[in-house]
Amino acid sequence: MTEMPLDASGAITFGRNPIDRRSEARENGAVMATALADARARAFALIADRVVLAEGSEEPTFDLATVAGLGADPAALLLLGWLPDGAPRFAARLPADPPGRVLVDLRTLAGEGTMPPELYGQLAQARSMLSWHERHGFCANCGAPTTIGAAGYRRDCAACGAQHFPRTDPVAIMLVSDGDRALLGRQARFRPGSYSCLAGFVEPGETLEAAVRRETFEEAGIRVGRVRFHASQPWPFVSSLMLGCHGEALSTEIAMDANELEDCRWFHRDEVRAMRDGTHPDGLTCPPPLAIARHLIEAWLDGRV
Amino acid sequence: MTEMPLDASGAITFGRNPIDRRSEARENGAVMATALADARARAFALIADRVVLAEGSEEPTFDLATVAGLGADPAALLLLGWLPDGAPRFAARLPADPPGRVLVDLRTLAGEGTMPPELYGQLAQARSMLSWHERHGFCANCGAPTTIGAAGYRRDCAACGAQHFPRTDPVAIMLVSDGDRALLGRQARFRPGSYSCLAGFVEPGETLEAAVRRETFEEAGIRVGRVRFHASQPWPFVSSLMLGCHGEALSTEIAMDANELEDCRWFHRDEVRAMRDGTHPDGLTCPPPLAIARHLIEAWLDGRV
Repeated sequence: MTEMPLDASGAITFGRNPIDRRSEARENGAVMATALADARARAFALIADRVVLAEGSEEPTFDLATVAGLGADPAALLLLGWLPDGAPRFAARLPADPPGRVLVDLRTLAGEGTMPPELYGQLAQARSMLSWHERHGFCANCGAPTTIGAAGYRRDCAACGAQHFPRTDPVAIMLVSDGDRALLGRQARFRPGSYSCLAGFVEPGETLEAAVRRETFEEAGIRVGRVRFHASQPWPFVSSLMLGCHGEALSTEIAMDANELEDCRWFHRDEVRAMRDGTHPDGLTCPPPLAIARHLIEAWLDGRV
Repeated sequence: MTEMPLDASGAITFGRNPIDRRSEARENGAVMATALADARARAFALIADRVVLAEGSEEPTFDLATVAGLGADPAALLLLGWLPDGAPRFAARLPADPPGRVLVDLRTLAGEGTMPPELYGQLAQARSMLSWHERHGFCANCGAPTTIGAAGYRRDCAACGAQHFPRTDPVAIMLVSDGDRALLGRQARFRPGSYSCLAGFVEPGETLEAAVRRETFEEAGIRVGRVRFHASQPWPFVSSLMLGCHGEALSTEIAMDANELEDCRWFHRDEVRAMRDGTHPDGLTCPPPLAIARHLIEAWLDGRV
């Protein structure tokens, strides 16, 4: 299934992924065997969030014999799905840095943005799936070791019979505005001068909209009324689904949680535009296009809220 | 933090929850001790998805001495948060049916809808949190037993140091339309004659919009173009976040996945209205207000898409 950028999400880094997952086919062992035997099959090879690239290029896929040579366990390949032309795509975890190979951090690759856009979505899928397996070798229900099932989309416990599925953590990320002012904050770990949207995990028993309001109140003391969904983004550090929203402030006095944020302010639209354009007099900036926060900011600047 | 129904999500069952979670306070052991000692503290008591009710009423909370008497382990109480008046609310898992007590299935309670709306959101939070602990007594990373941390919002592994957080699974649920026709399907487990929206889990490396398109194509063979977010709903069976969307069909010929669905059809707006109103000549129906699917259908019928 070829995915066109039909919405704002498809235009955000990691948001475009041409892989046809055929989730209904995963239970069929013959499908996995056929995909493994397909001469067009290629795999992404990662160690945590570092991606192996072919020598002298940014090509991040390798034929299956090559990934086995790099040290990947052929029995632990994850079948991501198929490209539109039917070529299978796998993800492979390497146990150690292969000698003589170039590995680049996925966040760096995505920030540079020089690969074809479709590759970032595939790499996000590979990275999140591999991380899940790496952290879920045992059954949370009984403690016994688990094994890969469903072509990589399940882990099975032979001891208690539990089935475990890959985890995706929904995150509310929001640009809250009060007329011509937007609420932006910075964490101590951000680059100096960089301000971004507030964000936090959606919790059990909570709507997305309630999470937008709770996180904004907990971090900044600002009450939020109307919430509008804008776009979503897979965020593979480690396995989040960013749910980007615009929120309307109901209050204006900031009470910042200093454990979460280093600073939090209202910025006028002109100032935000200067931050976006890199022309702010104090050198303040907002996040790069890699981040959905940037797209929430751009949409607000353009009146697309 | 009092939550008003500021959006469509707040008007859906489980979507309204007045509990102030104060997530930043959970790490503070004194906060938990103070909440436990608070005379206003009350707990929901559940066994899986069955809720203990007070004798002769629909009251689902009990003081902490009573829940201990019902068999709950006082050391395993989960602090959900605080009501707007500051009264702490806990969730307690019972090891067995307490003699002489009435237990009612949460889905039944929610379907009846006779409790104050704010209670359903709290019960959803309680049920999802309790289920997560019940299924996560061991470390997925190393297999060792884990212990409760952060007032119930974390499980800690002393063996490998891993921290585990409650899981929430995002689900795409969508009403796909083609002008005056809507795509509805039924699973074999549905009540006879009942048709609903298609749905499926959002996967790692996938946007919400892409999940809407993938699930609709996999289950019904219909291509979807534009996707619009409508509302979200916590769905505590076991721990989903339903992300309700409207989608515009790009194709019309259905190719149903018979493993997933028993039937799937295009229904004209007039027919859907009759299903909603209980006046369909063949007795076909659509889901009750408990389900976000019903709200997606109502919004489409009303032109709120």
